[in-house]
Amino acid sequence: MAPEAAIDLNSDLGESFGSWTMGDDAAMFPLISSANIACGYHAGDGATMLASCRRAVQHGVAVGAHVAYRDLAGFGRRAMDIDPAELAADVLYQLAALDGIARVAGARVAYVKPHGALYNRIVHDRVQAAAVLEAVRGFDATLPILGLPGSAVLELALQAGQPVRREAFVDRGYRPDGTLVPRGEAGAVLSDLDLIADRAVEFARSGTVDSLCVHGDTPGAVGMAALVRERLTAAGIAIRSFG
Amino acid sequence: MAPEAAIDLNSDLGESFGSWTMGDDAAMFPLISSANIACGYHAGDGATMLASCRRAVQHGVAVGAHVAYRDLAGFGRRAMDIDPAELAADVLYQLAALDGIARVAGARVAYVKPHGALYNRIVHDRVQAAAVLEAVRGFDATLPILGLPGSAVLELALQAGQPVRREAFVDRGYRPDGTLVPRGEAGAVLSDLDLIADRAVEFARSGTVDSLCVHGDTPGAVGMAALVRERLTAAGIAIRSFG
Amino acid sequence: MAPEAAIDLNSDLGESFGSWTMGDDAAMFPLISSANIACGYHAGDGATMLASCRRAVQHGVAVGAHVAYRDLAGFGRRAMDIDPAELAADVLYQLAALDGIARVAGARVAYVKPHGALYNRIVHDRVQAAAVLEAVRGFDATLPILGLPGSAVLELALQAGQPVRREAFVDRGYRPDGTLVPRGEAGAVLSDLDLIADRAVEFARSGTVDSLCVHGDTPGAVGMAALVRERLTAAGIAIRSFG
Amino acid sequence: MAPEAAIDLNSDLGESFGSWTMGDDAAMFPLISSANIACGYHAGDGATMLASCRRAVQHGVAVGAHVAYRDLAGFGRRAMDIDPAELAADVLYQLAALDGIARVAGARVAYVKPHGALYNRIVHDRVQAAAVLEAVRGFDATLPILGLPGSAVLELALQAGQPVRREAFVDRGYRPDGTLVPRGEAGAVLSDLDLIADRAVEFARSGTVDSLCVHGDTPGAVGMAALVRERLTAAGIAIRSFG
Repeated sequence: MAPEAAIDLNSDLGESFGSWTMGDDAAMFPLISSANIACGYHAGDGATMLASCRRAVQHGVAVGAHVAYRDLAGFGRRAMDIDPAELAADVLYQLAALDGIARVAGARVAYVKPHGALYNRIVHDRVQAAAVLEAVRGFDATLPILGLPGSAVLELALQAGQPVRREAFVDRGYRPDGTLVPRGEAGAVLSDLDLIADRAVEFARSGTVDSLCVHGDTPGAVGMAALVRERLTAAGIAIRSFG
Repeated sequence: MAPEAAIDLNSDLGESFGSWTMGDDAAMFPLISSANIACGYHAGDGATMLASCRRAVQHGVAVGAHVAYRDLAGFGRRAMDIDPAELAADVLYQLAALDGIARVAGARVAYVKPHGALYNRIVHDRVQAAAVLEAVRGFDATLPILGLPGSAVLELALQAGQPVRREAFVDRGYRPDGTLVPRGEAGAVLSDLDLIADRAVEFARSGTVDSLCVHGDTPGAVGMAALVRERLTAAGIAIRSFG
Repeated sequence: MAPEAAIDLNSDLGESFGSWTMGDDAAMFPLISSANIACGYHAGDGATMLASCRRAVQHGVAVGAHVAYRDLAGFGRRAMDIDPAELAADVLYQLAALDGIARVAGARVAYVKPHGALYNRIVHDRVQAAAVLEAVRGFDATLPILGLPGSAVLELALQAGQPVRREAFVDRGYRPDGTLVPRGEAGAVLSDLDLIADRAVEFARSGTVDSLCVHGDTPGAVGMAALVRERLTAAGIAIRSFG
Repeated sequence: MAPEAAIDLNSDLGESFGSWTMGDDAAMFPLISSANIACGYHAGDGATMLASCRRAVQHGVAVGAHVAYRDLAGFGRRAMDIDPAELAADVLYQLAALDGIARVAGARVAYVKPHGALYNRIVHDRVQAAAVLEAVRGFDATLPILGLPGSAVLELALQAGQPVRREAFVDRGYRPDGTLVPRGEAGAVLSDLDLIADRAVEFARSGTVDSLCVHGDTPGAVGMAALVRERLTAAGIAIRSFG
């Protein structure tokens, strides 16, 4: 008997801060298998992180540390020329905080996914990529890093023996060589839900990625995630964390 | 043979932030046995915390989580009417962050000491005291809380079965009933180093406290700590963490 | 001919922060005559403040400085034991920042309304009330402070010759002596829109207050403000800033 | 009679934050003619800004707005890819806040000097340079910007008709073409005080710059500034703000 086909669905959650709410976490948690939870640097605070971890446990969803630049005002979306030792310590701080909170909620941090501008920066910046890797590796040498296939951070992780997981964005356009169409160019962001859901199935079948990212903070995010989930299920593909 | 007399010396360290320095940590670490390390809410940041934990390991000094209100601008010295659930989550966040960083440095958080206005508030505020206790207890039910003898937080901890450690301030005046002379009143702060060092020996011999607090951020702090250490040693009292 | 009856309607606006949105400012601005605009301490940032001032100018709405404790994580809703000199400087900082931004947008700060926990604290705390007054008075001795009738801050302002404006909350219960029913007690918050609108007309006719506060950040805020406006207009009461 | 030779001496002051102190402002204020005062984004807070403006008035020193990226943890030393509209609003916020505080102290902001990473970025980044210019120009079209000769921000300012002032760094090495030797290369930072003082006189006589920057936050800063001042005075060069 063939092994069951399966894929992970990840989404950015826990991005509220204090009195401000972002996204519809209650609707998204039941649809995904991995939650990238903000750790207080671009979003999130103690209470939000604890509530998010509890929800993750309740829905059987894996907890990921969504580590970021220290930039609440910019939501972690501004690339920063930060000293690598400071970056490593900042990533460690966030990862440690979320892991301790997750343990109180009955879980553990299952992977690390850099957020926003940091995510994009360490696709090519090997110095910052090495700093992120150093932080994760120092904390737990068995903890997977979730990122873009071919990115500097995943390459360095592979060389170091740190586990990696590869993801695709279901609503982003890709070039023939596998790189993302940059935002601002035609075809960068897809809006046809049917097409998106079909590509999700394709990605899952291709075996080239471990996880599909469905955004949680855009209008229509819940509807898109629901359709992706439905189409994957109909195609006989199980949705579960990459473990 | 009588058991060896011993006492813990604790001090507030790791209170730098970014480009700003506070106190003379390099001089204080060799003199004490327990370091209350700031966790990023009133002082400290990832890099400072990591460096402080490494120094603690290097000097055989216990790492304490110096948890505080979220108030960098006020250095955690402003009492705050905070919702207890938010306070508990904030304390957990700080404790988890420091513990994860300490583990990378080869240590663990050995105790929790609330800082500044939070320390003073939970001497009498049972709601906030319970929130702090809940956070510590949820994280690790064997982790001692270091505080003022007779304070609400220590009483609640005792009732709940959480370990407690009692401290005295070597440079603060005490009333006959054991409470501190409030700052601003005559005799609140002692400045005669000889007297301070003698009282340290007295406190240590009395067996009423587990630890003596020597402040690290005042002028003359290092000199005072050095004399206290010398006088205790001369009196045959070992200086070591309450473990 | 009798002078035209008129009242001011004020609401808390500009309370977004970075990527987080709060309230429906676009819907509220056309309904009110005075906007209490957050100054970056409990909410707001440069871009939000500038956009809010521009909207105010566009709608002919007066700009008020909604000064607060420095507490983004707590949205300025946590009372703080802050040194009065620091509080005065913090209020001055916020007021100056908003006034400079308002001038770029073609307006000026027309009044100051303390926010949240600071608003409540200086109803009775004369030390903090004096600090707020000192800041406003130092900046502009003709700038009105908007607050609760009978509050310490308005009393001190009157004694000092600083202009004051008095407000009532259309959706809060009042005791016979004119004080608010505390939140948490029965009748603290009203929900019957008809009753609220009728009371707004009553308040306006009574001549005891200069302004009515309609909250902007609760569900149904826009509907309530619209009905209040409609009922006042039907009663022949003009809605305009107290100037 | 020949006009009196004169030059401005500027230094970064008011860089304390909350309980943390930086530099020796008390010693530096009497030595300089222009103080670049931090505005709360990389350093400074309301109370520090007010105290710094009062000191400036007391010593007849001009107040400059030392505007920066929003980055207390990094002291404004991390270049940031920030949206230009957000940058412009952030600069305006800081400038407005300091100007209002300065007015309470009896002064006005006399010029704007971008700080740290922002200063360096807008030497070449024309988009961010335009954003800074837009903020300053919108606030006051007669307010000078102090910067590096040949930098993008000064060029754009000149084109727009905004006044500019040029500065040299007395302790930095220059290449024959007038650009700074980058930090990290040999000769980037000078340490020979005699040489530094002589170059200050040379710069002042050359007429190529309006101001000399003497750093305030390095060890030996006060001694260097004192010697520069002494040497300039001995050479018959008056030290006064460029007004």
